[in-house]
Amino acid sequence: MRAIRKTSFGAGFEMVDRPLPHVGEDDVLIQVKASSICGTDLHIYEWNPWAQDHVKLPLTVGHELCGVVVDKGINTDGPEIGQLVSVESHVICNRCSFCRTGKGHLCENTEILGVHRDGAYAEFVAVPAINAWADPPEMPYSIASLQENFGNAVHTASVPLVAGRKVLVTGCGPVGVMAIAAAKALGARSVYATDISDYRLSMAWTMGADLTINPKKQDVLSTVMDATESEGVDVLLEMSGAPSAIDEGFRALKPGGEAALLGLTSADLSFNLDDHIIFKGASVHGIVGRKLWDTWYKMRGLLRSGAVDLAPLVTHRFALDDFERAFELMAAGECGKVVMFPDPAEADGPLS
Amino acid sequence: MRAIRKTSFGAGFEMVDRPLPHVGEDDVLIQVKASSICGTDLHIYEWNPWAQDHVKLPLTVGHELCGVVVDKGINTDGPEIGQLVSVESHVICNRCSFCRTGKGHLCENTEILGVHRDGAYAEFVAVPAINAWADPPEMPYSIASLQENFGNAVHTASVPLVAGRKVLVTGCGPVGVMAIAAAKALGARSVYATDISDYRLSMAWTMGADLTINPKKQDVLSTVMDATESEGVDVLLEMSGAPSAIDEGFRALKPGGEAALLGLTSADLSFNLDDHIIFKGASVHGIVGRKLWDTWYKMRGLLRSGAVDLAPLVTHRFALDDFERAFELMAAGECGKVVMFPDPAEADGPLS
Amino acid sequence: MRAIRKTSFGAGFEMVDRPLPHVGEDDVLIQVKASSICGTDLHIYEWNPWAQDHVKLPLTVGHELCGVVVDKGINTDGPEIGQLVSVESHVICNRCSFCRTGKGHLCENTEILGVHRDGAYAEFVAVPAINAWADPPEMPYSIASLQENFGNAVHTASVPLVAGRKVLVTGCGPVGVMAIAAAKALGARSVYATDISDYRLSMAWTMGADLTINPKKQDVLSTVMDATESEGVDVLLEMSGAPSAIDEGFRALKPGGEAALLGLTSADLSFNLDDHIIFKGASVHGIVGRKLWDTWYKMRGLLRSGAVDLAPLVTHRFALDDFERAFELMAAGECGKVVMFPDPAEADGPLS
Amino acid sequence: MRAIRKTSFGAGFEMVDRPLPHVGEDDVLIQVKASSICGTDLHIYEWNPWAQDHVKLPLTVGHELCGVVVDKGINTDGPEIGQLVSVESHVICNRCSFCRTGKGHLCENTEILGVHRDGAYAEFVAVPAINAWADPPEMPYSIASLQENFGNAVHTASVPLVAGRKVLVTGCGPVGVMAIAAAKALGARSVYATDISDYRLSMAWTMGADLTINPKKQDVLSTVMDATESEGVDVLLEMSGAPSAIDEGFRALKPGGEAALLGLTSADLSFNLDDHIIFKGASVHGIVGRKLWDTWYKMRGLLRSGAVDLAPLVTHRFALDDFERAFELMAAGECGKVVMFPDPAEADGPLS
Repeated sequence: MRAIRKTSFGAGFEMVDRPLPHVGEDDVLIQVKASSICGTDLHIYEWNPWAQDHVKLPLTVGHELCGVVVDKGINTDGPEIGQLVSVESHVICNRCSFCRTGKGHLCENTEILGVHRDGAYAEFVAVPAINAWADPPEMPYSIASLQENFGNAVHTASVPLVAGRKVLVTGCGPVGVMAIAAAKALGARSVYATDISDYRLSMAWTMGADLTINPKKQDVLSTVMDATESEGVDVLLEMSGAPSAIDEGFRALKPGGEAALLGLTSADLSFNLDDHIIFKGASVHGIVGRKLWDTWYKMRGLLRSGAVDLAPLVTHRFALDDFERAFELMAAGECGKVVMFPDPAEADGPLS
Repeated sequence: MRAIRKTSFGAGFEMVDRPLPHVGEDDVLIQVKASSICGTDLHIYEWNPWAQDHVKLPLTVGHELCGVVVDKGINTDGPEIGQLVSVESHVICNRCSFCRTGKGHLCENTEILGVHRDGAYAEFVAVPAINAWADPPEMPYSIASLQENFGNAVHTASVPLVAGRKVLVTGCGPVGVMAIAAAKALGARSVYATDISDYRLSMAWTMGADLTINPKKQDVLSTVMDATESEGVDVLLEMSGAPSAIDEGFRALKPGGEAALLGLTSADLSFNLDDHIIFKGASVHGIVGRKLWDTWYKMRGLLRSGAVDLAPLVTHRFALDDFERAFELMAAGECGKVVMFPDPAEADGPLS
Repeated sequence: MRAIRKTSFGAGFEMVDRPLPHVGEDDVLIQVKASSICGTDLHIYEWNPWAQDHVKLPLTVGHELCGVVVDKGINTDGPEIGQLVSVESHVICNRCSFCRTGKGHLCENTEILGVHRDGAYAEFVAVPAINAWADPPEMPYSIASLQENFGNAVHTASVPLVAGRKVLVTGCGPVGVMAIAAAKALGARSVYATDISDYRLSMAWTMGADLTINPKKQDVLSTVMDATESEGVDVLLEMSGAPSAIDEGFRALKPGGEAALLGLTSADLSFNLDDHIIFKGASVHGIVGRKLWDTWYKMRGLLRSGAVDLAPLVTHRFALDDFERAFELMAAGECGKVVMFPDPAEADGPLS
Repeated sequence: MRAIRKTSFGAGFEMVDRPLPHVGEDDVLIQVKASSICGTDLHIYEWNPWAQDHVKLPLTVGHELCGVVVDKGINTDGPEIGQLVSVESHVICNRCSFCRTGKGHLCENTEILGVHRDGAYAEFVAVPAINAWADPPEMPYSIASLQENFGNAVHTASVPLVAGRKVLVTGCGPVGVMAIAAAKALGARSVYATDISDYRLSMAWTMGADLTINPKKQDVLSTVMDATESEGVDVLLEMSGAPSAIDEGFRALKPGGEAALLGLTSADLSFNLDDHIIFKGASVHGIVGRKLWDTWYKMRGLLRSGAVDLAPLVTHRFALDDFERAFELMAAGECGKVVMFPDPAEADGPLS
């Protein structure tokens, strides 16, 4: 089969021919229909310091996908062959104390597709059956592929209570704008969004933001204060990892407010615990991955009910063979989600 | 009446003669029986930068006290004249949105005794009747005076769930060691405590710590990991404000754990949000003041049931007239709580 | 002034001439602009057993209102004269342990307007200033009057988590249909509603129900199971007090689900704790009044943001002088909310 | 091997010879060291209506046990051969939505040892490896066997917050008295206990109750009110299933209080939702089984730290061969926990 692999240190991927993956007793084999690109994939492509530390070569990359089950191990009892599925990319041990107490997203033995084991940018991939999430047959492949990334957004918007509250989202990359949509669907009274890119702010607007702020052009704090009768926001969803956004976000947070942090800073930060957390009596929650499987059930509801529509977020489609152009676009940044199709004839929209 | 006042910029207090405080319609007048010294009082005494920014002179200082009600305004209906009371030092407005929603500890219009209005180091003090907390008549004056400071500890130990869990307390000043006692009484499975002073660690031991660690002599992280089968602690109560203690505390915190922060850092801090909060999926809570009045009810239960005994923490007693010596002792640091008595004949233990 | 009073045992009210209410130091005097009718008012009108037990005569009745502040006591600092206000009808003591810990809705010394003290069906009413909730000047009087009743609905829909969940509302009286609107605005994925009146089910539909069920015509349990892929609902909001609705509601509740109970049964009930609560691992919450003042802030957000529009619920308007016809309509039951206006010229819609 | 089986309708069990259980790929084979008797086992012995409805014959009975792992399937990776283990008796599917969201105790496909599949009263039993909980080798067999039953008590005492609160336990059977011990260890300020048997009240006392009440001799409500300054209790743990105890328990519950219900009523009950739940603004939680596996981790902490000592609860030991006498004693009721040993030489105390 064709697979996009990282085979050597340095930037770039190559497409190679590989044997079909082994299907274990608890696994399903999935014929990939679509796979989307995440910031992490770009880090691996560019071979940044994080990638150098975490990724062991050679490796088939990619972790966001959907596909159809074509084979299954003897111990599985679902999903059935022929079923369209999305995939949770975190393969957990189900045995450690985290897995055994509803905190599988913190499993110490997690293996991530496309980081620790062969992933999604291929014609076929094998995953534990429990990681394959059954989708309705009519779900477009690009939406199905986006679900695992959408899960980060839903997880973030679910930890603080957003219903009936005013929410600030700092950082409007794909997960940020999906968090805007999730927060609105979960009852947020209003959602304000910041980003330094007007392209991204227009995506934020499309996904439901009530107000967008470009810190290069407007003062974030005073704009938020004007919008909230000088009260500040009840909830901060920090999706950027940028020190200035973090600082502005906490300044705009009301005393007694809640913050959920997803964006990674990748370095120590100069941070004022007194003003940002202690004097405010604020609560701050670190967000990692998706809650297994609460987040998936919640996503299912948000998508099936139509409360969230992810379609406007898919801005570009490529044939998998055309991955180089897809990654160049990602690197340039003027895009929403970019989805690749092993079989271009099955793309659910025009290719770029 | 005699009152200890801050009358001029620079270090020190002076004892002066003052008229009796005015008793408003909603107020009670309290004859002070005991008043204890808090770190904040020492800051004002020493006139440190925080004090220079926050305190307006002239002012009668002190905010921890107990006494007997001797007069009351026309709008009050309790406590009665003759009642022994402790005092909540935060006078809140009862009208802002925080006060109206059970978050009075975040009231934007708070006035603190001995910081923003005349305080406790005097023969008499007037406070709103609702700030006067009725004590059992047999409660020793020193314990009654300590209650408001104990409230900080109880508030901290009540925000994360400690019952059945392993808890690390970083910083064993008076509030830290009271937090140890509170956590144990609230069901903590075990409490580990750190401080760089052996004197304070011995107080920690007295107040119920299961293990004490001096970072000057032992590695905090490895000691905690040894004590917890390499899991780390479920809960961190940060009472020191010291960057190294904060860093060690978060390192020792288990993924999915909870931290409550009370100690002030008084400056920006180099902090790793990724490792300390995000990847861990941790929750962090800023603690300020006491919950009005949940914390007081909880304290009442802990003290009246005998679950917590604060007596060992009162290491020194002075006549109020002898305040200079009391503050010198505080500045030297080899003490637990220091309590002053306007009438030395009413001290509930030998004077120093 | 004119006032509608209950002056003697037996059915009915009478309109009488009364002196202006006394305005205490903490009170405001309100010129009533609109007052709406609640089921409780009908009970008092009909003098049912509950009314006979709880209401002391003579009394000016009515507890839902809005009006304009025309005088204020010396201790008040807001709202100002001229301000349009709605009124929280529960006058609480602010001193008991419930009031002091954010549970004022459980205050043991509560006095309710129109039940324990003179109420809203009059040209003027005096209430504590803290009970007068400032409204935007452009808010229609009928909506402003409805707010306190809307508060019951918002409180009910806020105790269980409804965001992203499937909700069943049993009972579509005014509070029931407002709970539908509140649940939808707070992010409920879908809301199913039951009532034996098709008139009320059509109101449910108007206020946002996704599915309405008349138990006289359809089997509630199988209809809900069909709508939920046989899972049942995550949340039950019980607004009817009817034994059959309660039974059906709990049968339709998913294991691990949450129920909030507002409807009063007025008698012992045959109830299966094993099947309805224990085996299901369900959580059940009793709802009384509004949370003071969290619910009011939440309502403010839902109304001002336009997330909830109460206008369609106001089906009839009467002059206050015409109260007999208003109560006859209420007794017949084919109505939404019925609002009365002391000055018919100020009605915000055509009179019936 | 020897096994105690239910082979025919009607009262009684018989000891028969059986082949060793089959050990599946995910299973461990356990040589039983001790097995204790639960009320459910007595129901099956007596063949009461519940048993007739739920138990399919023939069946090896018993579900509380400990033993040593002597064989293991190919897919297991712990516990190891030779390890002492206790057993969680609920075998869950790990695939349904409850299992996948941390609510395995509500799994729709649960099979219970000794109810739906062969159980613990035998020389050997096979269970999924994940159901075998590793114990420290020095743990007495009787304590290890009791753990699964203790889990019901810990689960009950963990759902409402008991730390710092006043708790009423209605019903002092073994689970009731273990709930007393758990509540005290988890920080309850005081625990009051009711039962109609003085024998059981003396067990309650031994396990840490602060006050015991026999409703045959004392009025429960007035006794609790006297003990709580007329406030009532914050938390009710209902462990009896007796209508009068349930009624008294809810009467004694404070407004805003929390109740956890474990005792089964086995029939419809006349219950006052208005007074017991709604007007009180109470929250009521149904308790079933143990939380998998949170409760086991919590238990582990309570037992290993010495916070709870279950030893006094083991009042009688029998050889497994002597099961008839053990069940006669259970039926008579004057006992705590009764433990049986396949090899009498391995009993951890004198046999009865």
